[in-house]
Amino acid sequence: MKELEGRQRAVIEGVKPEIDGGRFPAKRAIGETVVVEADIFTDGHDELSAVLRYRREEDEAWTEVPMEFLVNDRWRGAFPVTELGFYRYGLLAWVNAFKTWRRDLAKKTEAGQDVAVDLLVGARLISEAAARATGGQAETLKGWAKALGVTSDPQAARVRLALSAEVAAMVDSHPDRRFATAYGKELTVVVDPVRARFSAWYEMFPRSCAPKAGQHGTFKDVEARLSYVASMGFDVLYLPPIHPIGMTYRKGKNNAPSATPADPGSSWGIGSQEGGHKAIHSQLGTLEDFRRLLAKAKEQGLDVALDVAYQCSPDHPYVKEHREWFRIRPDGTVQYAENPPKKYQDIYPLEFENEQWRDLWEELKSVVLYWVEQGVRIFRVDNPHTKPFAFWEWMIGEVRRDHPDVIFLAEAFTRPKVMYRLAKLGFTQSYTYFAWRYSKEDFRQYFTELTQTDVREYFRANLWPNTPDILTETLQHGGRPVFMQRLVLAATLGANYGIYGPAFELCEGRPREAGSEEYLDSEKYEIRQWDLDRPDSLKEFIGRVNRIRRENPALQSDWSLRFHPTDNDQLLCYSKRADDPANVILVIVNLSPFHTHSGWVDLDLDALGLVADQPFQVHDLLTNAHYMWQGSHNYIQLNPHAAPAHIFRVRRRTRTEKDFDYYL
Amino acid sequence: MKELEGRQRAVIEGVKPEIDGGRFPAKRAIGETVVVEADIFTDGHDELSAVLRYRREEDEAWTEVPMEFLVNDRWRGAFPVTELGFYRYGLLAWVNAFKTWRRDLAKKTEAGQDVAVDLLVGARLISEAAARATGGQAETLKGWAKALGVTSDPQAARVRLALSAEVAAMVDSHPDRRFATAYGKELTVVVDPVRARFSAWYEMFPRSCAPKAGQHGTFKDVEARLSYVASMGFDVLYLPPIHPIGMTYRKGKNNAPSATPADPGSSWGIGSQEGGHKAIHSQLGTLEDFRRLLAKAKEQGLDVALDVAYQCSPDHPYVKEHREWFRIRPDGTVQYAENPPKKYQDIYPLEFENEQWRDLWEELKSVVLYWVEQGVRIFRVDNPHTKPFAFWEWMIGEVRRDHPDVIFLAEAFTRPKVMYRLAKLGFTQSYTYFAWRYSKEDFRQYFTELTQTDVREYFRANLWPNTPDILTETLQHGGRPVFMQRLVLAATLGANYGIYGPAFELCEGRPREAGSEEYLDSEKYEIRQWDLDRPDSLKEFIGRVNRIRRENPALQSDWSLRFHPTDNDQLLCYSKRADDPANVILVIVNLSPFHTHSGWVDLDLDALGLVADQPFQVHDLLTNAHYMWQGSHNYIQLNPHAAPAHIFRVRRRTRTEKDFDYYL
Repeated sequence: MKELEGRQRAVIEGVKPEIDGGRFPAKRAIGETVVVEADIFTDGHDELSAVLRYRREEDEAWTEVPMEFLVNDRWRGAFPVTELGFYRYGLLAWVNAFKTWRRDLAKKTEAGQDVAVDLLVGARLISEAAARATGGQAETLKGWAKALGVTSDPQAARVRLALSAEVAAMVDSHPDRRFATAYGKELTVVVDPVRARFSAWYEMFPRSCAPKAGQHGTFKDVEARLSYVASMGFDVLYLPPIHPIGMTYRKGKNNAPSATPADPGSSWGIGSQEGGHKAIHSQLGTLEDFRRLLAKAKEQGLDVALDVAYQCSPDHPYVKEHREWFRIRPDGTVQYAENPPKKYQDIYPLEFENEQWRDLWEELKSVVLYWVEQGVRIFRVDNPHTKPFAFWEWMIGEVRRDHPDVIFLAEAFTRPKVMYRLAKLGFTQSYTYFAWRYSKEDFRQYFTELTQTDVREYFRANLWPNTPDILTETLQHGGRPVFMQRLVLAATLGANYGIYGPAFELCEGRPREAGSEEYLDSEKYEIRQWDLDRPDSLKEFIGRVNRIRRENPALQSDWSLRFHPTDNDQLLCYSKRADDPANVILVIVNLSPFHTHSGWVDLDLDALGLVADQPFQVHDLLTNAHYMWQGSHNYIQLNPHAAPAHIFRVRRRTRTEKDFDYYL
Repeated sequence: MKELEGRQRAVIEGVKPEIDGGRFPAKRAIGETVVVEADIFTDGHDELSAVLRYRREEDEAWTEVPMEFLVNDRWRGAFPVTELGFYRYGLLAWVNAFKTWRRDLAKKTEAGQDVAVDLLVGARLISEAAARATGGQAETLKGWAKALGVTSDPQAARVRLALSAEVAAMVDSHPDRRFATAYGKELTVVVDPVRARFSAWYEMFPRSCAPKAGQHGTFKDVEARLSYVASMGFDVLYLPPIHPIGMTYRKGKNNAPSATPADPGSSWGIGSQEGGHKAIHSQLGTLEDFRRLLAKAKEQGLDVALDVAYQCSPDHPYVKEHREWFRIRPDGTVQYAENPPKKYQDIYPLEFENEQWRDLWEELKSVVLYWVEQGVRIFRVDNPHTKPFAFWEWMIGEVRRDHPDVIFLAEAFTRPKVMYRLAKLGFTQSYTYFAWRYSKEDFRQYFTELTQTDVREYFRANLWPNTPDILTETLQHGGRPVFMQRLVLAATLGANYGIYGPAFELCEGRPREAGSEEYLDSEKYEIRQWDLDRPDSLKEFIGRVNRIRRENPALQSDWSLRFHPTDNDQLLCYSKRADDPANVILVIVNLSPFHTHSGWVDLDLDALGLVADQPFQVHDLLTNAHYMWQGSHNYIQLNPHAAPAHIFRVRRRTRTEKDFDYYL
């Protein structure tokens, strides 16, 4: 009991956000607000005060904001985050004797009771506040305390003074916090660039960008392609690995076990005599070319994202220089990757349990820092779930300590808890199961989990309908309508989304074989030539959708996502809204790429900020059509061959005759 | 990075039970099992092993039990708690190289691959295990390692050895835990007596136990009443405060502001010249009488519970001896209790913010310890939510450190989070909102929250249909049927329940005034004479219900509670089951005390351990009627004037002709 202060009577618990008991930071983007809620209460019936305090990690001084009581012992406070990096926050609550006294005085006065002694109690409380104040305020408080105690003055006048807002405000600004309870932990929020929350990615193989068939594309060719990518409205151009590619066990076309001399190999078979993860594949160009590409891309509003794939071809310099970083088999060979009985002899995984793991970690960090120095700020990390969690937490922490604007996207297609853990420990964005969500109920459940539970505090979804590894069954059979549909879903369900092009906009749907999600003639193993000007290309449709995203803040974050019931299982309906400026988007998607579907949507008007008795306008930003609706029940019909979706901007207030000056 | 061990690749998170990040212990009763679950995973595809370890708090050595993989990275382990007091538990997980190797060897062998090198890898792993073993096991392991490496022996035979269960078991018993991950916290479970989980309370005013009207009852009179209480099947006899009662501002009948000399005063107006919380009201008897009552009660299987009401009448010795423990007003008077504009001048609350709070805490603890020394083991604590949380946590912790069999019931009728906090910090049982739950949906929601969420880990509900302070509206109007109905609900929804009698069994339903929940002529302010032999007394019905509780383990805990749909809002249906011995109870209650209701129940057969295609028997333990049912859909009709409920024992297997020896 010696160290206990038994008079700390306030309790603080149930704090949100608090990830795993404060083990991990919550995530926000710059300019956002951190809303903190907690259960705060005390014994008995005394009034409480509570503050939320916050500071940038590198600062010492706290800034305090008052918390407000909501309901059922729940309190809320909020602070803005305006700088990249870490912020700390904590909570403080205390029993407020003056507030309690003031409340009770009002009740007693109202009941006509004599409050002579109560006024003396108040005088004491105010003079205690005076002792905590200085200068003029101290004098003012002393004066009020004295006035309250002048028993010869009329009680009514003294009660008026005691209950005045002026007295309350000044006493409140000198609170008695001797027995304040501080929440036991300091919590952390990490602040990322806005692009962490809102981004449109385009993945493209540089080597397939050559103007002529049979040629190996270069960074210069990619430069020429920038305006094409930018015209579709993307803001991140993600390049698969640009490093030298190994020869040993190099894969041929369609993942053939052996390559011909003409085969370029897989971009993920990293490392050759030319170099490893810090080198550039010579057929793409020089470091200088690469840096120029970064600059040119920037001019078009595009950030170039690189691939971080920590694995080696047998020809990688590490294999010779750092055999200790690999697993050596009893026969003296290096252990290749395997998923028994499958063997991947073109890939040597790094052995993270080796004795020299510290050197390995440092080297891997230096790879990222090397590209950061070249100007890269976004990394898509290949298979992070096959390297130790502790490594990622350390590496990302180290990089972001000096470069808090760096974004890491986790390509972890694995079990949900593993994906969430990677997000918690530092990945800025994460791939999701979006590609394999098909039914209305699947979408509702999964995206409710991602956007309406604690998951959203640390897991930022990035939605990809396809990748070089993922050609889902639905894309194989649905033709152009399904590509339009999946694009709208990805781009409106997710503030972050991406496509792998030009396969996507050209509706490439041929699998290597039936039942496979691999592309036929995949770019992973060969150079492809794409006809970007094909009349059926979706480039303009994609451009329109990305323009809608840019013009509507509602689509630039995910937390407001709400699903609305429909009476047809093929019609998915959801909305997003931004508060400032007022912006509401309502999306209805026909989930069938084959048939026209119609039905009734049952809108949650509250979620849309609408009222039942007033008509409102919905404006289809895809087709430019306008409809007048009223109430929650509205009819929809969508022909997937024309337009598989509505993206409605909802305009809450429409003019009626009552708006005319001369109405009545 | 210096202090980091980067090779600890296993992750442990999402541990349950873990109350508020380990801040509070989970609760169990003696003989129960602590089932611990956690998300445990690692990077990549390696196999894991995990153990749960536990120890009594006072022991140093851990006992380990293996954890088993469930699904979706969830693991489970369990340990029994066989002693009162605190247990600690923790988790440990590690990447198991041998298990991984063995799994992969099996896959490769199955695919017909050459595994020559793999066998050498295995030999290395087994000889590493040998180095961790001693004596004969070390020798055996060495032998196996050597055998695996004899390349001249046939591969098939060596594979058979490598994959043998014998090798797996012995290697597993010498695991490589160098890089094991320990969960960051040691967690705690507190083990209480079985009565903490399963108890039937009877509250009774000793002063109303005199054989003749107008007399003040004594402990001896209570002794004479013991067999009556025991015959109804109760096991806790709870007495309102037995201490001297103050004279100043003593309340008269029906809470009249002033008392006549004949009025006995409120039992909660504690303290007079006779003494305070450690004294006995002289009209009840002596300390010796009280101790004899405890002994006599014990003979009847009854524990006597005392009331702990930390408040004072103006005549309490503390007021003179420890004025510093009270709030002194500027006019020199002691602050009485108030809830403005209401004043309770007969009660002085203790001022916990006083400078001498340490002395006050010690004194209050000594009150409980005093009665513990007299043999009391159960305390019902009056209004704990009006005293500081920190005090309770300290006081209960202190008392239970030496007396872990002591039970504290929190009488906190307040907001839910306050009630839950009191439970977390140490109260063994808690009053609930049961008295104010009326509709089917209310019951389902509230009792699902209490029994199927984390709340159950620390909050043990005790259900009271009435108390001296609570005569709910439904009891005022429903007559005998509603008392029967509420008794069945309390006694079967809650393994812990209680009634305030004889008011309850005599169906006392007269309120002091319309709209009030106070009893007319409340025993709080006067001595009552009850005719226990009235023919309409529920004593036999109560006895039957308590006998059913004692004979059916299903009703002795709450965690198995499940609600089953019915097609009539007045029919509430739920079940409980105990695994050992197999015991399933199905309760259906007509929530209307006025009308016969019928309808269909839609049983969750899984929850009952039944199968759809086999008939089963339900045996009404209240009426002794038997019914044969099959499938989930069954018809119910209940006349509240005859029996407001069924309490069915479900017998899963019924004999059919197939059970005869000569059937086919």
